Amino acid sequence: MTALGPDAAGACTATAQARVRAAHARLREVDRPEVWTLLLPEADALATARRVDQRVAAGEHLPLAGTTLAVKDNVDVAGLPTTAGCPSYATDPRGRPGPAPRTAPAVQALLEAGTVLLGKTNLDQFATGLVGTRSPYGAVRHATRPDRVSGGSSSGSAVAVALGVADIGIGTDTAGSGRVPAAFHGLVGIKTTVGLVPTDGVVPACASYDVVTTLTRDLATGARATRIMVDAGGDRSGRRRWPTDVRLALPEHPVVAVPRAADLDALAPSWRVAFGAAVAHAQAVGARTVEVDVSGMLAAAHLLYEGAILAERYAAVGEFLAGSPPDADPTVAAIVLAGASVPAAAYVRDRAALVTARAQALDVLDGCDLLLLPTTTDHPTLADVAADPVGVNRRLGTYTNFVNLLDLAAVAVPVGAADGGPFGVTVLARAFDDQPALDLAARLLEPMTGDGTPVRPGTAAPLVVSGSVELLVVGSAVQPAVRRALVDLGGRCERRARTSEAYALRTPGVDEVRSAGARCQRTPAPGEAPTSPPYLHGHALTRVAPGAGASFAGEVWRLSAAALGTLLASLPAPAALGPVELADGSWVVGWSCTARTPADAGRGAGPGRPAVLAAQGTR
Amino acid sequence: MTALGPDAAGACTATAQARVRAAHARLREVDRPEVWTLLLPEADALATARRVDQRVAAGEHLPLAGTTLAVKDNVDVAGLPTTAGCPSYATDPRGRPGPAPRTAPAVQALLEAGTVLLGKTNLDQFATGLVGTRSPYGAVRHATRPDRVSGGSSSGSAVAVALGVADIGIGTDTAGSGRVPAAFHGLVGIKTTVGLVPTDGVVPACASYDVVTTLTRDLATGARATRIMVDAGGDRSGRRRWPTDVRLALPEHPVVAVPRAADLDALAPSWRVAFGAAVAHAQAVGARTVEVDVSGMLAAAHLLYEGAILAERYAAVGEFLAGSPPDADPTVAAIVLAGASVPAAAYVRDRAALVTARAQALDVLDGCDLLLLPTTTDHPTLADVAADPVGVNRRLGTYTNFVNLLDLAAVAVPVGAADGGPFGVTVLARAFDDQPALDLAARLLEPMTGDGTPVRPGTAAPLVVSGSVELLVVGSAVQPAVRRALVDLGGRCERRARTSEAYALRTPGVDEVRSAGARCQRTPAPGEAPTSPPYLHGHALTRVAPGAGASFAGEVWRLSAAALGTLLASLPAPAALGPVELADGSWVVGWSCTARTPADAGRGAGPGRPAVLAAQGTR
Repeated sequence: MTALGPDAAGACTATAQARVRAAHARLREVDRPEVWTLLLPEADALATARRVDQRVAAGEHLPLAGTTLAVKDNVDVAGLPTTAGCPSYATDPRGRPGPAPRTAPAVQALLEAGTVLLGKTNLDQFATGLVGTRSPYGAVRHATRPDRVSGGSSSGSAVAVALGVADIGIGTDTAGSGRVPAAFHGLVGIKTTVGLVPTDGVVPACASYDVVTTLTRDLATGARATRIMVDAGGDRSGRRRWPTDVRLALPEHPVVAVPRAADLDALAPSWRVAFGAAVAHAQAVGARTVEVDVSGMLAAAHLLYEGAILAERYAAVGEFLAGSPPDADPTVAAIVLAGASVPAAAYVRDRAALVTARAQALDVLDGCDLLLLPTTTDHPTLADVAADPVGVNRRLGTYTNFVNLLDLAAVAVPVGAADGGPFGVTVLARAFDDQPALDLAARLLEPMTGDGTPVRPGTAAPLVVSGSVELLVVGSAVQPAVRRALVDLGGRCERRARTSEAYALRTPGVDEVRSAGARCQRTPAPGEAPTSPPYLHGHALTRVAPGAGASFAGEVWRLSAAALGTLLASLPAPAALGPVELADGSWVVGWSCTARTPADAGRGAGPGRPAVLAAQGTR
Repeated sequence: MTALGPDAAGACTATAQARVRAAHARLREVDRPEVWTLLLPEADALATARRVDQRVAAGEHLPLAGTTLAVKDNVDVAGLPTTAGCPSYATDPRGRPGPAPRTAPAVQALLEAGTVLLGKTNLDQFATGLVGTRSPYGAVRHATRPDRVSGGSSSGSAVAVALGVADIGIGTDTAGSGRVPAAFHGLVGIKTTVGLVPTDGVVPACASYDVVTTLTRDLATGARATRIMVDAGGDRSGRRRWPTDVRLALPEHPVVAVPRAADLDALAPSWRVAFGAAVAHAQAVGARTVEVDVSGMLAAAHLLYEGAILAERYAAVGEFLAGSPPDADPTVAAIVLAGASVPAAAYVRDRAALVTARAQALDVLDGCDLLLLPTTTDHPTLADVAADPVGVNRRLGTYTNFVNLLDLAAVAVPVGAADGGPFGVTVLARAFDDQPALDLAARLLEPMTGDGTPVRPGTAAPLVVSGSVELLVVGSAVQPAVRRALVDLGGRCERRARTSEAYALRTPGVDEVRSAGARCQRTPAPGEAPTSPPYLHGHALTRVAPGAGASFAGEVWRLSAAALGTLLASLPAPAALGPVELADGSWVVGWSCTARTPADAGRGAGPGRPAVLAAQGTR
């Protein structure tokens, strides 16, 4: 029997069929029926897996081939009922009666990428809760500590992944539902900026703030699945796209905001210690931390469950719950039905308050790249929750409830341990700074050795590709000033590459730069001489006849279109940017040079030597 | 006595003091006290004007010096009460008691640019109405046809401008309040994309959809004032900024959507004829018109006054009006107080319906640059409105009510005449396409000669400058392919310029381009040979020693940063982009070239000849 533990990701090395067989073996082994609202027969999953394996064998690239998928049951899968944790919702005419006509585009994109669906998972009913106990399908117990809660509302997906059954768990997250269960299970939970992943085919919790998320054992799989979902089709309006000046990487030494001690009062004592260690780890992996006052952000949380925003929950499923279905969870029903009596003017005022709170949050984060918070406060038992279902739930959401309301992106990652279980933090970022958040999360996942090993920026898988452009920077050592400029522009160092053998390389001399009228258009960094060209000129490539030149090694950076335009507009003469041919025959934008000095004329070109600047035949 | 009629703009040629004296002379002449809620004493305005004249005499550039300003009385001016058309609102503790502590940032920016405030103007109370009659300060009669309505709610500002008293009238526009009075008076009304102009210091009508607008006799003054307001400070959250890929110009032959005949049923017969003439005029000035079904857009209007969105009006001033102030307009009070009983869930559903409607509107406009509609339906008398205040108001808003709800920008301009008065159309655009809309409006303002004189794109004043970049394109004739690429990227041809005398010019030859590995990365236009370089290479500048080269004439285009980056990434070798020095010593990005052929080596440089490509001294 193949037992895949929580750490045994390795899915991509197995065939899809082997992976499905292993998943079902593990399923039988763990015996956790409350995880699923609907489990597909193994034979069905195997049939799908066979088709995936055939496509791979035929040479098709399926980035998720060899992985298994668990989908939270408030997300549509064609042909299956969508219960949202309330079976009668899938039959009642006020709900979503009958099987879903089509698969939610976010999930459809994952399936097309080769993952194999195992089934639909249990949840806090209507995605209302952070505990995982509010379901007629049964309370979902923690994967390894069954007296404790699993966390919710994406409870089933989290436990399916934590147990090694599924490789990708799909959750939804309005108030922390994709992050809290990640924290309890040592998983990675990626909650992108609201609107990036299509929410078509999702039963709304609070439609303005719902996000489809991933739960995975490793960041790479989560990032890959997230990118596929962001790039998915789907036509629900309100969809947002990456802005054309999106930041594509974290700086090497990011400024990371951390809460003041007073903002951590909600943490259990051992969790507080663990958070301190996580902050130290962030520093060890290159972050400069600054304390900020996050009390204003935390206070915004009350708008979600105590304010008029509740009306969104009523608008979504209130009429159904008003019919008193027998399988409604009483706590959930009470919360949602409270939204019935909210006057619209109160909702309008709360939305206005949120807009103000959002601006204040941006002020708090001014000068910071990211914000680091504990994901949740402590790990309650099932008995704790039964004794105080609303109070415990509220406490667990202290550091998650406000996030979507304030339009922040979040990546929850495990960092260390507390109270005999995993401890998790969340990296928070301004809207659309999902990639920098993912990059810091990747660094935090490095072992806490404490030796302060220097790291390179941009270690996570790239999330944003569409609409961005590549830029080649050459030279035996990329100039620090150039690198800093690219990082400031949100650029991402993606790979090393070589030019074709058709180039000469040169660095403009001081006199040449001066005579070309160059001015430093950028404020020099501390310690950098303000008047010393070549500054931002890079090492300029000059094309010569194919074969007559040399191949040069460099770095390919990825930049947003706006960043590339901004860089170009800020370049001093004689630098220029234009197409450069790589060794594989593809073309990217590279650093060129337009001015020439007589002294260079006629010299031979080659790596390490001043390049030919005189006429070079191209025939 | 100096009588400035509606057509006598000429403000910028007069001193500020002379302009204020003329304005007050005109004020006395026209005797329209109902225009103002508060008129500043002439001596006060003259004192301000004197300071403006002194600053101009001292060499300061004040783009609005010599103009006069009228501000709608729902916008704060420091030291003056803000009545919003209801005097008790400026004294009641539930309103805005006392003088405004500071001037609304949008107005403050105009004052700093040298315009002189004459006073605060009358309006449909709380900016609720399109008629101009709903005010305890008196119904504002039309400027030249006093039996007819002025249009509202920015009635006073419109009439002050139409009478030649003020040069810039500040309005607010939620449902058409800045456009309908423009149409009745032959004025230009610019309503930018929601959120671009700060709304701090404005009494909200429907806070999500309120826009501060300009009413002017000419488009240039309105565009100048609008740009100043968009660039103004102001910190109210929800502010939006130009996206980094903003379109900066209208194509020479834009595709303009026009409504089907069935969508024009609300028009009075003579107005229908006038609209037909306006469409023909649009065609004569270069537009290609296509009929679209706008019934879905028009239907969205009912959400504003009959739907739950009304709750926003209640949230703004409902508690004040619920106190039954004696000077409340009964029609306005009834509308606003209806918002009290709206449940939040209904509001949530209506907002969701709006999101869907917005997506549908974008679908309708797919493939079109702009939409042309009549601004309003007919010109009612004061008696018509008194007989049916709500019905007439609703009809007047047929073509304006939906616009802000569906996140469209709008420019209302006079085009021809109908029913003995001016006839107006509105150019509508997707959010942030304000500049293309302004450009078509500018073309429509050309006399309707019917001779189809070809026009040049981009004749209106540029609205967007911040964040955009300049690109020099040289050559005796800019290649059509290059021009088309720049227009496709939303670029704006802004001015002609010459390089410094330090350049040589060349056009890469076919063989050179081929050997440089060039591929056409853009689909050729119809009639353009797909395999014939030089394609998109432009005429490349090569820098030589200052004084040793020649000066070349070209066009300076303005592009968004994202457009410049996109252009660069699409350029085939051997083209490149880099800094080029202009004759005035400034630098812009220009077309360069990186490849060289031996045949070029050693030749002299000069206009009209192949440029030097061999080593050129830079000393």
